[in-house]
Amino acid sequence: MAKKVVTLGEIMMRLNTSGNDRFSQARQLSVFYGGAEANVAVSLARWGLEAVHVTALPDNAIGEAAGRDLQQFGVSVEQVFYIPGRMGLYFMETGSMQRSSQIIYDRFNSAFSNFGGEEVDWDRVFEGADCFHWTGITPALSRKAADLTLKAIKAASAKGLLISGDINYRRNLWNFGVDPLEVMPELISYSNLIVAGATDLYNCLGIDEEDYEVACRMAMSKHAAIKFITNTERNHISATHNKLRGQLWDRENMMVSKTYDMPQIVDRVGGGDAYVAGLIYGLLHMRSDEAVEFATAAAVLKHSIPGDKNLASLEEVQDLVKGENVGRLLR
Amino acid sequence: MAKKVVTLGEIMMRLNTSGNDRFSQARQLSVFYGGAEANVAVSLARWGLEAVHVTALPDNAIGEAAGRDLQQFGVSVEQVFYIPGRMGLYFMETGSMQRSSQIIYDRFNSAFSNFGGEEVDWDRVFEGADCFHWTGITPALSRKAADLTLKAIKAASAKGLLISGDINYRRNLWNFGVDPLEVMPELISYSNLIVAGATDLYNCLGIDEEDYEVACRMAMSKHAAIKFITNTERNHISATHNKLRGQLWDRENMMVSKTYDMPQIVDRVGGGDAYVAGLIYGLLHMRSDEAVEFATAAAVLKHSIPGDKNLASLEEVQDLVKGENVGRLLR
Amino acid sequence: MAKKVVTLGEIMMRLNTSGNDRFSQARQLSVFYGGAEANVAVSLARWGLEAVHVTALPDNAIGEAAGRDLQQFGVSVEQVFYIPGRMGLYFMETGSMQRSSQIIYDRFNSAFSNFGGEEVDWDRVFEGADCFHWTGITPALSRKAADLTLKAIKAASAKGLLISGDINYRRNLWNFGVDPLEVMPELISYSNLIVAGATDLYNCLGIDEEDYEVACRMAMSKHAAIKFITNTERNHISATHNKLRGQLWDRENMMVSKTYDMPQIVDRVGGGDAYVAGLIYGLLHMRSDEAVEFATAAAVLKHSIPGDKNLASLEEVQDLVKGENVGRLLR
Amino acid sequence: MAKKVVTLGEIMMRLNTSGNDRFSQARQLSVFYGGAEANVAVSLARWGLEAVHVTALPDNAIGEAAGRDLQQFGVSVEQVFYIPGRMGLYFMETGSMQRSSQIIYDRFNSAFSNFGGEEVDWDRVFEGADCFHWTGITPALSRKAADLTLKAIKAASAKGLLISGDINYRRNLWNFGVDPLEVMPELISYSNLIVAGATDLYNCLGIDEEDYEVACRMAMSKHAAIKFITNTERNHISATHNKLRGQLWDRENMMVSKTYDMPQIVDRVGGGDAYVAGLIYGLLHMRSDEAVEFATAAAVLKHSIPGDKNLASLEEVQDLVKGENVGRLLR
Amino acid sequence: MAKKVVTLGEIMMRLNTSGNDRFSQARQLSVFYGGAEANVAVSLARWGLEAVHVTALPDNAIGEAAGRDLQQFGVSVEQVFYIPGRMGLYFMETGSMQRSSQIIYDRFNSAFSNFGGEEVDWDRVFEGADCFHWTGITPALSRKAADLTLKAIKAASAKGLLISGDINYRRNLWNFGVDPLEVMPELISYSNLIVAGATDLYNCLGIDEEDYEVACRMAMSKHAAIKFITNTERNHISATHNKLRGQLWDRENMMVSKTYDMPQIVDRVGGGDAYVAGLIYGLLHMRSDEAVEFATAAAVLKHSIPGDKNLASLEEVQDLVKGENVGRLLR
Amino acid sequence: MAKKVVTLGEIMMRLNTSGNDRFSQARQLSVFYGGAEANVAVSLARWGLEAVHVTALPDNAIGEAAGRDLQQFGVSVEQVFYIPGRMGLYFMETGSMQRSSQIIYDRFNSAFSNFGGEEVDWDRVFEGADCFHWTGITPALSRKAADLTLKAIKAASAKGLLISGDINYRRNLWNFGVDPLEVMPELISYSNLIVAGATDLYNCLGIDEEDYEVACRMAMSKHAAIKFITNTERNHISATHNKLRGQLWDRENMMVSKTYDMPQIVDRVGGGDAYVAGLIYGLLHMRSDEAVEFATAAAVLKHSIPGDKNLASLEEVQDLVKGENVGRLLR
Repeated sequence: MAKKVVTLGEIMMRLNTSGNDRFSQARQLSVFYGGAEANVAVSLARWGLEAVHVTALPDNAIGEAAGRDLQQFGVSVEQVFYIPGRMGLYFMETGSMQRSSQIIYDRFNSAFSNFGGEEVDWDRVFEGADCFHWTGITPALSRKAADLTLKAIKAASAKGLLISGDINYRRNLWNFGVDPLEVMPELISYSNLIVAGATDLYNCLGIDEEDYEVACRMAMSKHAAIKFITNTERNHISATHNKLRGQLWDRENMMVSKTYDMPQIVDRVGGGDAYVAGLIYGLLHMRSDEAVEFATAAAVLKHSIPGDKNLASLEEVQDLVKGENVGRLLR
Repeated sequence: MAKKVVTLGEIMMRLNTSGNDRFSQARQLSVFYGGAEANVAVSLARWGLEAVHVTALPDNAIGEAAGRDLQQFGVSVEQVFYIPGRMGLYFMETGSMQRSSQIIYDRFNSAFSNFGGEEVDWDRVFEGADCFHWTGITPALSRKAADLTLKAIKAASAKGLLISGDINYRRNLWNFGVDPLEVMPELISYSNLIVAGATDLYNCLGIDEEDYEVACRMAMSKHAAIKFITNTERNHISATHNKLRGQLWDRENMMVSKTYDMPQIVDRVGGGDAYVAGLIYGLLHMRSDEAVEFATAAAVLKHSIPGDKNLASLEEVQDLVKGENVGRLLR
Repeated sequence: MAKKVVTLGEIMMRLNTSGNDRFSQARQLSVFYGGAEANVAVSLARWGLEAVHVTALPDNAIGEAAGRDLQQFGVSVEQVFYIPGRMGLYFMETGSMQRSSQIIYDRFNSAFSNFGGEEVDWDRVFEGADCFHWTGITPALSRKAADLTLKAIKAASAKGLLISGDINYRRNLWNFGVDPLEVMPELISYSNLIVAGATDLYNCLGIDEEDYEVACRMAMSKHAAIKFITNTERNHISATHNKLRGQLWDRENMMVSKTYDMPQIVDRVGGGDAYVAGLIYGLLHMRSDEAVEFATAAAVLKHSIPGDKNLASLEEVQDLVKGENVGRLLR
Repeated sequence: MAKKVVTLGEIMMRLNTSGNDRFSQARQLSVFYGGAEANVAVSLARWGLEAVHVTALPDNAIGEAAGRDLQQFGVSVEQVFYIPGRMGLYFMETGSMQRSSQIIYDRFNSAFSNFGGEEVDWDRVFEGADCFHWTGITPALSRKAADLTLKAIKAASAKGLLISGDINYRRNLWNFGVDPLEVMPELISYSNLIVAGATDLYNCLGIDEEDYEVACRMAMSKHAAIKFITNTERNHISATHNKLRGQLWDRENMMVSKTYDMPQIVDRVGGGDAYVAGLIYGLLHMRSDEAVEFATAAAVLKHSIPGDKNLASLEEVQDLVKGENVGRLLR
Repeated sequence: MAKKVVTLGEIMMRLNTSGNDRFSQARQLSVFYGGAEANVAVSLARWGLEAVHVTALPDNAIGEAAGRDLQQFGVSVEQVFYIPGRMGLYFMETGSMQRSSQIIYDRFNSAFSNFGGEEVDWDRVFEGADCFHWTGITPALSRKAADLTLKAIKAASAKGLLISGDINYRRNLWNFGVDPLEVMPELISYSNLIVAGATDLYNCLGIDEEDYEVACRMAMSKHAAIKFITNTERNHISATHNKLRGQLWDRENMMVSKTYDMPQIVDRVGGGDAYVAGLIYGLLHMRSDEAVEFATAAAVLKHSIPGDKNLASLEEVQDLVKGENVGRLLR
Repeated sequence: MAKKVVTLGEIMMRLNTSGNDRFSQARQLSVFYGGAEANVAVSLARWGLEAVHVTALPDNAIGEAAGRDLQQFGVSVEQVFYIPGRMGLYFMETGSMQRSSQIIYDRFNSAFSNFGGEEVDWDRVFEGADCFHWTGITPALSRKAADLTLKAIKAASAKGLLISGDINYRRNLWNFGVDPLEVMPELISYSNLIVAGATDLYNCLGIDEEDYEVACRMAMSKHAAIKFITNTERNHISATHNKLRGQLWDRENMMVSKTYDMPQIVDRVGGGDAYVAGLIYGLLHMRSDEAVEFATAAAVLKHSIPGDKNLASLEEVQDLVKGENVGRLLR
């Protein structure tokens, strides 16, 4: 029977300029919907898991469109609440070569950030679930969102689920008057899989250590629940050429995946979410050293697909891990 | 020498679905920039006047794009201020036949609504000007915006400019906790040209009278500064078929334009602004009965042009008034 | 609690030229997915009912895309089977004025037409259902499809569901060597709502009578299960201008809806399916004279929406019935 | 055996704004190729005749593209000469309702206007031909082009072909320092079918008579070769709504076609050429009163098709003459 | 005088997703027409040869569009037969980096596969011809198509033409119940130029030998008619980065072309056909070692051009062979 | 206070095929406006300078569109004259890999080439100016344009401005019957900054010396006004992969910038103009060794932006010089 994963987080509308147009040249913007946690849910549903995403969307036609977008990938939308408020947005222009890609966020005061989540019956949502995934973006949005995250994590913990937290620290998100260090450590303390680089560990756990393995050890010694810390290492050669590898620390070993060369990136947004989805899938279905390879391959394939979601199938990820059919013309 | 007109108001980004797509079908949105007052400035600049638009835009690449869009039509952007904040937005889907067009506004808390306008030296801005144009949208946005409007109107009045105010009452705009009747009468009391239907006069001046001419007389007897009250009458046969005429009350006569049949509307947004621009142009350059014909012809041509702005030339409007070259293939 | 409706039928990929391009000019084709019965399911799901569509799709990426398209509108895809075979297709060019629209079908030998439906547990599918809807397209496709239709109808009849059959006779579909009169009368004999014009009644029931009301009486006297016969009357003024009204015979009265003028049709495909969905919704929720008005209004709104599906909301249909907000700019 | 028609004239590249965009809004221009005479050749080839078009195009990739465009419709390109020079161009924006469509020509000094035609072996070209078609646009371009036209007409006359001349007088074309009255009468004097309205007859034959039938009689009494004079009458209700009928004077009767209502014109460019092609086809294959109906129906269908060429099939034109399948959905 | 080449084979409609969209994201599909043999004919016509393509297309508007597409490139369509049936199709999504491109074929039971070719008068078709080209795709389609291929080959052989056969073995094509080894050896036995890799030689000639040169020798010793065996070697670094070189065995020498690096492939479909066209052109006009260079350069240029056809001119191919003007901005 | 720069030169409309389409595949052309000198003005205005462009455009809607395009970037259009005549055009197809990009010019006899410039009051234009920039394209167009250039240079020289001349020798431009060596030396003799490679120096100054530094010394010894000679060195690996560096000779030192790798060029048109703008900016604001780095970085960023204009901001250029934020995702 398929594993069940629950995710919580905001879905945004992404408005992207065409090709390599700059914002000032844009007469048309492409519409995508996505969110760090919903992207994970979509990957897992695509790979055959039962995925339930908990969120709030505006009760207007734009919100409905976002909900349908999620639903088409087979993610359950039973826990999507339509409430008054605005849609979180971000505008993006895609760079090339030396010119960076740019994102302008416009997500303040969105319906989700004002969502208290009283309507969610967590017990029922987590029934039969194997994993709960949250990210550090949600508690950064508002006090209400931080409280909601904690409530969900505690309920998941009580049910004994695998709890996955992608720290994803972004300085300019934390605007509601609280230091991440007041909020994040408690959330992390219940979590079993932590996605975090050294900077995240510093900003959200106060661990001031540049050596990643040492920092991981320190985080784990503080928080017994943490079983895995993971991260991707990205080498930015240019806006359209990166190298990527994943690493996973399991309290004993630092497992490092193959390094992939990505010289003609189509869309890097959601690459990290594809990695996390791959890791959750991997940890639920394979050995942890296999999981990190699976996760990295998933992340790489995401870079070849427009939009925020990883539409690569299970077979495609597995083939890439094995090095089969790579870059062929499949008939 | 060309007349000079100053306008004050917010510029928004409009995101429109393609063709007759519904929001849930949109994979691409067309980008337009516009605002009731800026649209008037663009028309007047297009027709050879000196036009200065006073506004605030976000200090990011989206705000810059909006500023450049205005600048390309020859409106002076010297009084455009780039400040922190978000861009006001609206999403639109264009209906057809019995299906209405729909707008979803997302303009709350925009850079402009938080703009106090302390940077504006009104004396310098109004130097050599002939006319100042404001609309009832600005005071509806926020206390700051209402105060700014009053300050501008008073300065214009002190300089003896023709002051034009488009009442444009929209119930769901007035969200900052004040009744329009506390704010609008004072603004109107300084104005010489008022664009208002009976509903506007009721909501913004408290005149409870359905007969438009009687209501106009009552408004004028209250406010000695008002010399003209004007309005368009629109018959909605369907989303793509309207009839339109203009009417202008000059304290003595109700002048009514020809009625135009518009059976295949391309874009009706900005039709009212095109009318107001036409009327301001008309009152500055011709007899008032000619002005209402000119204004209505301008409004009609706007309905054939995509976007918020009326890109019809002076000659095109004049030709339509005269009934020349209508619907031909000009080589 | 929401009513539940089950539909059975093929989903095709529609490839449409852009704007008014002819096939020979097409460098791009728009992709839509639809099918007479699935379109009904989408309408009903959009209006809050539980809708389950039973079909087979090719087990490739095109088939998956069709399944996701259905899923996004909230139709249950639990009974969508992915089997070897090809996708049924149709190509369409949209006419204008005197030039007709044209469809080229390429649906022969599709996965669905070879689907025996052995996998379907009809008892389980019909559990809690209120209505089953089929059309005369399915039995026309192949012997297997005809047998499947009969099996489904019998199971629905045994459960006491309202059975709706849209006769939809098309001469060039019946290619598998059987006369419709050998197949259709039995299918119709179990059905309670029949969508049929006089030609359909002649070809599928052998009723040779031009007077529609008389023909309806004859059909009903033959088949006691039939409670309603309905039809739309369409006046083709041009490819882009039609008039439409619905009529419903309930064994006693011929109820006729308002006639709607549609002078600028966006997309007429799926107009009939929108009508049927409206009638099913109506018969499940209102008086039959109200149902025919609701159904016709739904059909009219469909003509303003690109693609095969009626994306009009319940409120929009109800407003059109009441004549409210027609052709306005809703803010 | 199929009839053979030879045409002579310039092919231009047409650059059209999208939808109803004005020139200043255009970020994309649609590319079409066409010319008054080549459009006639395409229609006739589409309807099964052998069509040979004589022209010169620039010897670069743009010229080649124009040549291929012609070739795809089965017009023989054996007499297309690639020579140094520029492509004739025209820019077009498509109006709507009261706003006129506009064309900006940029055809001066094109390769064709400098083409002397020495390479053409007219005897060989006209071998087996039934008809030669020229228009008044060619002699207007340059002295060389005028001489070439005369040479071709004389050769056609010597072979006893039906000679068709579309006068098509446009004041701003005649720029090479000659009055049309010095050139056109001789060209007309050899022609058997003249397409001309009263204005054309005045400007190109000096016939100063407003009554069309009287003017036709006068033209014919001057030039014995003329057997038919024809014209379309177009009523411009708006840029997107015209009415059209054809009339043909055969020295004895004025035959007038049905009047067609065209309320949603897709593209009116080439409508006149479609009419001329229809008339040539008609005069070669049917009675003259049937020919004028065929020609008008062809012209009407052209108005529903994007681009300069009439892509309607013989059957479609015949159906429209008979009033069959008009505005239907053909499956 | 130009050489004349005859080709025989199916033309398919290709429906390609935009950019790097996956099938499930496609709202628009680009339309191309192509076929392995027709692509060769187009190349050769583009380079000045007389090319005649023999095929059957559906007798509907889609078939006509395919015929016109071929005709525009100057290929003779006199031997294109329009018969009842469906158009062969294939759907394609273009990969990037590690993600492969994918093709879904939908060509079963096409008009061409049911075409017996009785209408073709091979003697007349081959009159004056220098070369006949066929591929292993045609005999794989159906018994009728296999018989037609043999008939054509025998007629070409009787006339003493250079016969070129591109083996192009694809396992999933041979569905009509026959082993390739029952059909292909006879077809090959009449052919002079064979395009085949080691796998093709194994599957279609039963030569079980991995060393390519040895396998070539073995094939030639079996079939005296074979004068040349050729192949391209493609190194798949990724979906968008390949390396390519050609090799040609002439019974004595293995001639190998330069290896080209192709790091940003635009469209690889038709690359092999461009190579074959280059080789035929080469063998008819230059030394065989020059031919393999010409052919490889042609194949490389094809990879930079959207669609199935190689639109590179003779000069462009020759320049690339010489290394001139490579990657410049030519003004 | 901002520096002021005046530029003189033609603006052309560029019509570019989409993606990598060849001219013969183009159904849509993208519209850009640009010109070597106007591109420099746009860069400088974007970076905060006051920029005035002197030119003539056709007095039609296309000319107006070109003027507005310039105006949107804040370049003063007070010295843009609208006169009768045609717009200069160029058509472009963008190559890929080994296939070169191609430009077809169609600029002969444009409005600008016939512009005598009598309307320009150079004294007033140069008031307060710091720099005047011209290129060798203008004198190549016509005698009138050559005279106008000289007049402007002399006036600038009299005012003591920094005069910058981009030699930009193109053989096929000089069509009006004069050798560049009769015209260019005088123009150069007044200039202080010369953009020229060895070929330019040979063709326009008669300096026959391949060693660039020696040639620079010779040019300077002839013309005392020249203080700087500069150039970019471009290595064409393919149409989409170049390497670029700048070099600047200041009578004493040859300063050479970093070499940039550009493996995925978006649009190389205007790269040289971006370099010149960077150098002018640099020489007005920084040391000359810094200027050449700034200029080269500006040129590199231009290659990532569609169209002729460099839309990179001052900060983006400065960041690239410092190697900061290169190819990142900026949030």
